[in-house]
Amino acid sequence: MTNERYERGLENLNKVDGHAAEAVMEALKDVAPDLGAYIIEYGFGDIYNRPGLTFKEREIATVAALTALGHAAPQLKVHVHAALNVGCTMQEIVEIIIQMSAYAGFPASLNGMFAAKEVFVERGLIDKRD
Amino acid sequence: MTNERYERGLENLNKVDGHAAEAVMEALKDVAPDLGAYIIEYGFGDIYNRPGLTFKEREIATVAALTALGHAAPQLKVHVHAALNVGCTMQEIVEIIIQMSAYAGFPASLNGMFAAKEVFVERGLIDKRD
Amino acid sequence: MTNERYERGLENLNKVDGHAAEAVMEALKDVAPDLGAYIIEYGFGDIYNRPGLTFKEREIATVAALTALGHAAPQLKVHVHAALNVGCTMQEIVEIIIQMSAYAGFPASLNGMFAAKEVFVERGLIDKRD
Amino acid sequence: MTNERYERGLENLNKVDGHAAEAVMEALKDVAPDLGAYIIEYGFGDIYNRPGLTFKEREIATVAALTALGHAAPQLKVHVHAALNVGCTMQEIVEIIIQMSAYAGFPASLNGMFAAKEVFVERGLIDKRD
Amino acid sequence: MTNERYERGLENLNKVDGHAAEAVMEALKDVAPDLGAYIIEYGFGDIYNRPGLTFKEREIATVAALTALGHAAPQLKVHVHAALNVGCTMQEIVEIIIQMSAYAGFPASLNGMFAAKEVFVERGLIDKRD
Amino acid sequence: MTNERYERGLENLNKVDGHAAEAVMEALKDVAPDLGAYIIEYGFGDIYNRPGLTFKEREIATVAALTALGHAAPQLKVHVHAALNVGCTMQEIVEIIIQMSAYAGFPASLNGMFAAKEVFVERGLIDKRD
Repeated sequence: MTNERYERGLENLNKVDGHAAEAVMEALKDVAPDLGAYIIEYGFGDIYNRPGLTFKEREIATVAALTALGHAAPQLKVHVHAALNVGCTMQEIVEIIIQMSAYAGFPASLNGMFAAKEVFVERGLIDKRD
Repeated sequence: MTNERYERGLENLNKVDGHAAEAVMEALKDVAPDLGAYIIEYGFGDIYNRPGLTFKEREIATVAALTALGHAAPQLKVHVHAALNVGCTMQEIVEIIIQMSAYAGFPASLNGMFAAKEVFVERGLIDKRD
Repeated sequence: MTNERYERGLENLNKVDGHAAEAVMEALKDVAPDLGAYIIEYGFGDIYNRPGLTFKEREIATVAALTALGHAAPQLKVHVHAALNVGCTMQEIVEIIIQMSAYAGFPASLNGMFAAKEVFVERGLIDKRD
Repeated sequence: MTNERYERGLENLNKVDGHAAEAVMEALKDVAPDLGAYIIEYGFGDIYNRPGLTFKEREIATVAALTALGHAAPQLKVHVHAALNVGCTMQEIVEIIIQMSAYAGFPASLNGMFAAKEVFVERGLIDKRD
Repeated sequence: MTNERYERGLENLNKVDGHAAEAVMEALKDVAPDLGAYIIEYGFGDIYNRPGLTFKEREIATVAALTALGHAAPQLKVHVHAALNVGCTMQEIVEIIIQMSAYAGFPASLNGMFAAKEVFVERGLIDKRD
Repeated sequence: MTNERYERGLENLNKVDGHAAEAVMEALKDVAPDLGAYIIEYGFGDIYNRPGLTFKEREIATVAALTALGHAAPQLKVHVHAALNVGCTMQEIVEIIIQMSAYAGFPASLNGMFAAKEVFVERGLIDKRD
């Protein structure tokens, strides 16, 4: 009965996150595959499937929230990938994270920026820091 | 020397928050007017003055972050006003706050929604709940 | 297609929360009824429907988490009702909240205790404080 | 066996918080008096009894932390009283709270300031806002 | 005068955490042994010594809270060990952590699950992921 | 127009943080140099430049807040360096972090202590743990 939500979620996830979420699902497989299913069904089958915001606007919201929360670096990296995949530029992502300094303080903003930087380096958007 | 940033910040604040931030500044006047000045200078003179994101995109990010943080209801209300002022619809704001349930849990999302609802009622966008 | 999850969630919600969640759903009705539906479908149709923990154990976990988070007093009150409904005693709830002082500090523990006390008073478990 | 810590804690609490903590202890009496005892024993009998920092330095640390946490307004008010009692000036407290804007963001700083302002008004340090 | 609480705490800690807390105490030895003593005295001599909840119920509460807080992975790992030691099954721990997705969001739930998985792998409950 | 604040901030940063912040600024250079500039201008040109608290008192507040927040270990390490540079002793820093156990719980206090210990080891204040 949840198959339809799962299928729809997987489709949205593929549009948004590309391969970035695959490692997460793989790592959950032998401990809590249902948690992975819920993320796909609820996060991407329900929430991301809703009209009213574009994928780009949704990623702006998610990158902002994950930066502000401060304890979600691995998920922030997945959504920096996602943001880039749905049309955000590196500079727009940098802007969102800088903006968070006013709402969550410099430490959350800095740690978010360094998580994002890892993705930018991985994708060749900035040179690897040596 | 900070006058230029303050002037620019006030200009941006007026475009964005209309009168919603005025009560905050007024309440700070006799205890910490400098904190109010920093919000205007840094928040609106520096951050909101940067190119790269539209005011609407910045408000999407801020509404998302303030909902996720969970301890910022008064500021969320100011930014729900601001979001409406710069072109977000009520439905878009509702979407952002629903989306936060996946990243910060249902309690943060619910409390954010009820803060936003107060603004919607205040502005006549939904009927006053009796 | 989500009807089955909603029905099942409503059934679980009725077993667990009695009438305490009704006001929440009512207040969401004119602003974001879908958020209410997601809480019922995901929170009570998916999560609370899972085998592996009793309702009492689930409420111990939820009361602990909502106390520790510190920003979820209204939801904590709903779940103090729920905990009492599924067989926790007042004293067990008090124990959970005291325990949180070690993991989230005295302020979170104190604020959780005062939220719980409101429920205890409401249900006549302790005398109304005058 | 905890009597000595309790006595010592009560003594320290009286030096530091004056009457501000009394209402807290009173409100705990019929629901969780042991939580009140732990605050006195651990918070004031153990921690505040340690050498190495003055009471004023301890209150600077506590006011900063409670402001940054964002979910502890009632406890922040108790410790603004305490800070004033052990020799902090109103202006020093205002400074600490402004400083938190850089580490926890403007919302936490603003909400902390308004909690502190209530204490300043209560003690006649600034005029009641009308 | 705290000897009795310390002895009692150590006894409870040994019943609950087995050897998992030893590395923590060892690492504190040359920087802040008193913090280790407070954890034993307050956490295990006072709190865990209280009647009213079983050790298993206390661990359910602690695993839930540490997952929800999001910033306590090392302590969560200690208490996943503890939960297993006092009779929780791996599946019950997985259930608690999945449940937290509804209250603290998917990122806190995911990061908690991966911390728990490290313990499950360490104890041979699931195969080492290669 | 921000040059004066930047110069003043850099001067304060040099007095306070010595070389500890340099790596941060370096790492921001190719991704978000403006965020580094804001930290210098706002954090050290505005906030740390204010009269009313000594640098030592400001560092007590910052170390307390960063410990309590729980998600700011890299920034805590920078400010443990800073605290030592402006006259705090290792023992005073240890005291502040122990104190946070009462306000933010043992996990935040423990994680803060281990971050601080890394700095103490780095500066030869305690022997490298083997």
